[in-house]
Amino acid sequence: MIKIVLDCFGGDKSPEANVLGGLDALNLYDDLFLYMTGDEKRIREAIGSSKFDESRLEIVNAPDVITCSDKPTDAIRLKKESSMMKAVKLIRENDDVTGFVSIGSTGALVAASLLRIGRLKGVIRPAFCPVLPTMNGGIVGICDTGANVDITPEHLRQYAIMGSLYMKNVYGVEKPRVALLNIGVEEEKGDELRKQAYKLLENEKNINFVGNMESRDLLSGSYDLVVCDGFSGNVLVKTTEGTALQLLKKLKLDICSKTKYKVGALFMKRMFMEEKQFMNYQNYGGSVLIGTLKTVVKGHGSSDRTAVFKCIEQAYRMETSKISEQIEEILAKDEI
Amino acid sequence: MIKIVLDCFGGDKSPEANVLGGLDALNLYDDLFLYMTGDEKRIREAIGSSKFDESRLEIVNAPDVITCSDKPTDAIRLKKESSMMKAVKLIRENDDVTGFVSIGSTGALVAASLLRIGRLKGVIRPAFCPVLPTMNGGIVGICDTGANVDITPEHLRQYAIMGSLYMKNVYGVEKPRVALLNIGVEEEKGDELRKQAYKLLENEKNINFVGNMESRDLLSGSYDLVVCDGFSGNVLVKTTEGTALQLLKKLKLDICSKTKYKVGALFMKRMFMEEKQFMNYQNYGGSVLIGTLKTVVKGHGSSDRTAVFKCIEQAYRMETSKISEQIEEILAKDEI
Repeated sequence: MIKIVLDCFGGDKSPEANVLGGLDALNLYDDLFLYMTGDEKRIREAIGSSKFDESRLEIVNAPDVITCSDKPTDAIRLKKESSMMKAVKLIRENDDVTGFVSIGSTGALVAASLLRIGRLKGVIRPAFCPVLPTMNGGIVGICDTGANVDITPEHLRQYAIMGSLYMKNVYGVEKPRVALLNIGVEEEKGDELRKQAYKLLENEKNINFVGNMESRDLLSGSYDLVVCDGFSGNVLVKTTEGTALQLLKKLKLDICSKTKYKVGALFMKRMFMEEKQFMNYQNYGGSVLIGTLKTVVKGHGSSDRTAVFKCIEQAYRMETSKISEQIEEILAKDEI
Repeated sequence: MIKIVLDCFGGDKSPEANVLGGLDALNLYDDLFLYMTGDEKRIREAIGSSKFDESRLEIVNAPDVITCSDKPTDAIRLKKESSMMKAVKLIRENDDVTGFVSIGSTGALVAASLLRIGRLKGVIRPAFCPVLPTMNGGIVGICDTGANVDITPEHLRQYAIMGSLYMKNVYGVEKPRVALLNIGVEEEKGDELRKQAYKLLENEKNINFVGNMESRDLLSGSYDLVVCDGFSGNVLVKTTEGTALQLLKKLKLDICSKTKYKVGALFMKRMFMEEKQFMNYQNYGGSVLIGTLKTVVKGHGSSDRTAVFKCIEQAYRMETSKISEQIEEILAKDEI
């Protein structure tokens, strides 16, 4: 049995989206056991009359919620009765609970993961690795997108190793093509961090390094994993999301501005719907925090039922692929 | 007379786009004098039988070209006969030549500007400030996008001051709303650089600071100027460009995939053309390098005739607005 704990509060659509996404996962995976943390009454209301195997669900009552305005380190220390910290306690105290999914405060989740769950042997710092769709129908992973903002070249080398294992084990990408995010493709480009990281990546035998990548090529389909510091990774992912959303919004407004365009759009309704689905990051799950002792998946704050389901699926696949052992096998040597 | 020197080589479409864009500017502005540097024979060929006031153009022969594969510091030292270095020599040796437009190698241009043209009094480092269109029909400036990758909070404060003056003087934005690019909107977000910069910006009376901005809101129209280190600024701008281009490309491919969509697109032809124009960065000119003793404008490598014209227009407006004096008036105090 794969046991995962789901924090049912914290997102914009919680607890409903969280609870229903959780039940969807229970109904798809027969060997999945879910703990749901949060206000029990509200969780039961969200479950309503849904059908599922009740023997594989346990609700853990937690009256409190950590919000984005809580200071992360204070929150994890003081809000012991919150849905997030109850979930952390559960995973910390039970060896057989191996995954943790939360849609709540990123800062609190990172702090709790580092301080209460811990790192795999050899890992300097766990890092977020979300995936985005590419224009040729594939996906690209980005590591890190905000877990660590002040880093060294060595962090980037570890992101490349962990991210490669992630893309291979969870998404089936053989020999992931790893690129370093930089301001130009030439080897000597960038700041000191990038210049030194380039050398480390070039000499790292556990990855398939293909060189620097400019951010405009992220969605081109030429790369499977991009490594970067958490600050620029955050900028990279949010700019992609933001530009796509704003453009689709503009397209919609422009279509509504003239009858002729509205008529044309009728012919293309299906296409526009597919376009919208394609750019909907909800369909690609959350960001896995790679390198923690147990799997941690952070969903987007606006996650809907599908997105929560996908996050649980990611945690499930992380566990079935035994990726943690593979990471430790390579990185434990770094500690020697 | 406003005297500007135009490097006619280096871009993908040079010298034709450069030369014709230059003549367009000459034909629009009666008080503009242009020097064109580069292979004289090829420049004359590009001019062909175009009509313009010949008394306001001088061609300065330069047989060599600096390419992107040349190492910047070597190139500016060794390629004295290049179109870029001939232009730099001209602006350096003639007080009345006040602007310099180039589509060539960014690295060489930055190095030449710093080492041969110099900075305004008080400016730590000049910074690039391109503008992008926002969804509500306005524009937003981004400073810096790659002139400096290793910086301090003080750099960001100066970018905010110089960028504000630029948005006001060249684009007529009254009291530009300045944001700091960060990974969250809350004050305490980000790395050490951002935390310290936030405090400096908050206390700077010469700007209208509105707080942190997440990259997904760049095109929202809520900001007039975003300040950032050159690395993440580069990521920000190139991701925006890349995502928009890739999405439009995908839309085109999808339309071509079904007859029904093709029919619909016929009704919307004009709209799609406008959409394409809207996202075409060529229409927004180049990146002004703010803070140099004389105006330097860098055009995108793929600049067409319109883009080159816009770059010259930016250099022209920089000079007519006397922005350099305003920058020195504020920043010269920093040297005390």
